[in-house]
Amino acid sequence: MAKVKLRKGEHKQAGFLAKNYSGTVPLLELDDGTLIAECTAITEYFDALDGAPTLTGRTPREKGLIHMMNKRAELELLDAISVYFHHATPGLGPNVEIYQNAEWGLRQRDKALKGMEYFDAILKRQPFVAGEVFSMADITVIAGLIFAGLLKLPVPAECEALLAWYARMQERPSVKNRVTMSRTSAASSAACAAS
Amino acid sequence: MAKVKLRKGEHKQAGFLAKNYSGTVPLLELDDGTLIAECTAITEYFDALDGAPTLTGRTPREKGLIHMMNKRAELELLDAISVYFHHATPGLGPNVEIYQNAEWGLRQRDKALKGMEYFDAILKRQPFVAGEVFSMADITVIAGLIFAGLLKLPVPAECEALLAWYARMQERPSVKNRVTMSRTSAASSAACAAS
Repeated sequence: MAKVKLRKGEHKQAGFLAKNYSGTVPLLELDDGTLIAECTAITEYFDALDGAPTLTGRTPREKGLIHMMNKRAELELLDAISVYFHHATPGLGPNVEIYQNAEWGLRQRDKALKGMEYFDAILKRQPFVAGEVFSMADITVIAGLIFAGLLKLPVPAECEALLAWYARMQERPSVKNRVTMSRTSAASSAACAAS
Repeated sequence: MAKVKLRKGEHKQAGFLAKNYSGTVPLLELDDGTLIAECTAITEYFDALDGAPTLTGRTPREKGLIHMMNKRAELELLDAISVYFHHATPGLGPNVEIYQNAEWGLRQRDKALKGMEYFDAILKRQPFVAGEVFSMADITVIAGLIFAGLLKLPVPAECEALLAWYARMQERPSVKNRVTMSRTSAASSAACAAS
């Protein structure tokens, strides 16, 4: 595993951009040199390896719902928070944030706060973001909420179903490790979000 | 099939938003009432129905590459063009475009033009966007170029590989029908793009 120094802007420099045009982490490099970027794509790869997908859907209906809710978690939460971070806060610092559009960033922050209310409504009626089973869509909402927490955008107290779900998610070993990682660098949760 | 009048803003009104929070078309409603929004999710559903996916990947490596390139086609082309349309042109008209951020829109237009150069470089070395086979990623680039054409953002003449690929894609019956549909309304290509 190679680390990329986000605050130094390594992910926006030619060496990294040659491997991932979009300049985002994480990036998976297979033994044969194949490069796979984008969280959803990396999840698709790993989830398919043993022929028994659990995170991306077993049936056509599950696949459709999981991909819809994952995309919604990106649009309404994770990407919105990322744009807020990069455009309406100091973000990764002046060496990286060469262009900022604060008005757009603040608007995306408001979109993310509405997104929390949306996912609260969803989790009032079902145990997981895409239905009855844990999926990639839960992971994307978790990433969004970790990132929001680092930026001091807490989930509103009235979003009780979202907070109860999040408390359950915190018990998962992968989330515990992730939270520890994130605390070492506010930048790391920016990993999956579009610039 | 129910039509949604985009220029009247039907996709931003309560009745439609109750079915699709993100307020975008298309939206698939199954016989059991299940609602699936987002192009990628709808494609996942249909592609999985017969147990032999062709558009979303057969192997783990194909799945990873297709989802990566599809996301890149959204980020670097289709979504960028959509933001340009909604923010730096009259878009769907004053009843729908209640908030516009022209500076952001123009920046996304420039991103889309760079995206065309990126896909040109990709198609110089492989026959399809995600590799050796036609996939969902090709469809997303096609949608981006149809939308760009309607907005008078033509592919630069020096992008010869992209133009040659696009000419091949135009021969596909689905693309021919799509182009005909799009000409009836500049709005329809906004269908799949995030707001």
